[in-house]
Amino acid sequence: MDMLAPNLRKIYENSHADALLIEQDFLRRYLTGFYSTDGYVVLTAEKCVLVVDSRYIEAAQKAKLADCVEVVEGSYSAALELVKGHKNLGVPYPFINLARAEELKKEGFSLSDCMDALKNAMLIKTERELKQIARACEIAEDAFLRLLPQIKERMCEREVAALLEYEMRALGAEGVSFDTIAAFGANGSVPHHETGETRLRFGDAVLIDFGCKTEGYCSDCTRTFLFGDDKKHEKFKEIYAHVLAAHERVIERVAAGMTGQEADAIARGYLKEQGLDKYFTHSLGHGIGLQIHEYPVLSPRREDVLQDGMVFSDEPGVYIAGEIGVRIEDSLYMKDGKAHSFMKKTQKNLIIL
Amino acid sequence: MDMLAPNLRKIYENSHADALLIEQDFLRRYLTGFYSTDGYVVLTAEKCVLVVDSRYIEAAQKAKLADCVEVVEGSYSAALELVKGHKNLGVPYPFINLARAEELKKEGFSLSDCMDALKNAMLIKTERELKQIARACEIAEDAFLRLLPQIKERMCEREVAALLEYEMRALGAEGVSFDTIAAFGANGSVPHHETGETRLRFGDAVLIDFGCKTEGYCSDCTRTFLFGDDKKHEKFKEIYAHVLAAHERVIERVAAGMTGQEADAIARGYLKEQGLDKYFTHSLGHGIGLQIHEYPVLSPRREDVLQDGMVFSDEPGVYIAGEIGVRIEDSLYMKDGKAHSFMKKTQKNLIIL
Repeated sequence: MDMLAPNLRKIYENSHADALLIEQDFLRRYLTGFYSTDGYVVLTAEKCVLVVDSRYIEAAQKAKLADCVEVVEGSYSAALELVKGHKNLGVPYPFINLARAEELKKEGFSLSDCMDALKNAMLIKTERELKQIARACEIAEDAFLRLLPQIKERMCEREVAALLEYEMRALGAEGVSFDTIAAFGANGSVPHHETGETRLRFGDAVLIDFGCKTEGYCSDCTRTFLFGDDKKHEKFKEIYAHVLAAHERVIERVAAGMTGQEADAIARGYLKEQGLDKYFTHSLGHGIGLQIHEYPVLSPRREDVLQDGMVFSDEPGVYIAGEIGVRIEDSLYMKDGKAHSFMKKTQKNLIIL
Repeated sequence: MDMLAPNLRKIYENSHADALLIEQDFLRRYLTGFYSTDGYVVLTAEKCVLVVDSRYIEAAQKAKLADCVEVVEGSYSAALELVKGHKNLGVPYPFINLARAEELKKEGFSLSDCMDALKNAMLIKTERELKQIARACEIAEDAFLRLLPQIKERMCEREVAALLEYEMRALGAEGVSFDTIAAFGANGSVPHHETGETRLRFGDAVLIDFGCKTEGYCSDCTRTFLFGDDKKHEKFKEIYAHVLAAHERVIERVAAGMTGQEADAIARGYLKEQGLDKYFTHSLGHGIGLQIHEYPVLSPRREDVLQDGMVFSDEPGVYIAGEIGVRIEDSLYMKDGKAHSFMKKTQKNLIIL
């Protein structure tokens, strides 16, 4: 009988290495389900060994890990001992640092990149992973609903972001999945606005891009709304309606087998019909999992094929420099050949506070 | 006249490379003073070029950077163009990933490690850097003082951490410098306790390890106190007094020219006199700067020589498993040959809420 769980077996075989040596937090977590700030995973044809130091050994031994995961106390030298006798080590080239790579070469190992094998496995989420992302999405939405009545005139962007992050933490999030973006007024027209000291005035549009983590898994959400309607928002409202229509078309029309490019074109094509595509200056979406930016990528230049079990953002936006910025974003998952949103609690018709 | 600022000249020369290519956030920030999530710095004998993409170019051009820093719009290919013609590239081995290193080698560059040159420069803080760390410390202390009256029975660790992080953000912090540790009761005896759902009971000891960032610079602070005095705390109070004495001796006695080992021995030796050294299971301290763990390291095995301009933590602790945990930590700086604490606002005599 195979000692390795099927997903680990697949990663091992697809990496074409004698053994894998992994020391990145999120990859250790993916392979073993256990979180620690330090540690190593050694994956061979026979077993998956988690190496953690004295701070974590008790928790790791108590944790309900997969049967094939063996826990060993130690640090780098213990991990090195475990890979001895193997010639070629699979390591994730985009994440392992050069200092470590040089050390391993000096020990006589040859290295190869196992990131594609890991990436391809991580691309399709298990039921357990989908549940975690669903929970991270639910917390983000609940926190947003708690935030809305607390927003007051003269608050600065940083305070609004701090309040939202507090609510996510209080609702059970481990932390944010990225630094919250809060943009007031024309600041919303900068897609990666740095949340700052700008104060909220009556009639401002507010754009908030936020997300949190539970058990390591991320959520990603953007909402744009008005703080008071001073009757000067015809253009904003028109653009909002178009961005929302583009966002919703993606949920309705994305189907398994489509490429990232084709999914992106659903939103971009609709905005083009409205003459707004030149203001949609970024990609439609990105994969979401243990990292906030994963695969698939949904952009005009990507051939990633969408499949059941994938999770990605649907975030069209229109940015008219110095004037208006609208982005509407849900985290979606693919099931039964179609896209579904994790976000069910927050309304997407324009909110006017 | 030298075109490079003296600190950049020194880093360039100590790295013994033809050009440095840097793409890590905190190192870019150190070299140029400019923050962006993506970008490159190319440092040559003649100039220091910051390469940022369209999202950041306007902000970078407006920022008051050192005269020798030139700003260029672009991404990786633009940075590559700038280093062309140089043979040996200095890159920080502990931070550059292997995928990037392999790409550079394919382009015909030989690589060498410039991290020691960077590390040695970053070890001695400038007046501007000391001011930023002082501000991050002040915010952390003010937030802690705002937190204390909000702590209520039955709150869980995660809520207390969320409240403290909110107060730091509201006071102007960009974010936390590490995940806040809040440990109630016996949880405090685990030095790296994972903040969780444990609820506060009358009579519990509370240990909070926290810090925030301003302009990228970190603060680090730990306070231990009692939530209600139910008269069963004789042993706790005795240990608290000893940890505090060890902590204060370090501030009083550390002098320029001492090694990290000698500084560590001030606290460890005092705790040994009390029969408590076996419960002091970690190092006395670590350097603090743009990263929460930098140099110097103050531990029984380190020869780092303490000098004016260095910033490090002073954090003795006593951990009796499953029973008591006390840690008291300030961020210190060296000036005029002596250690001084950045923390001036929070009282270190035992607080009983």
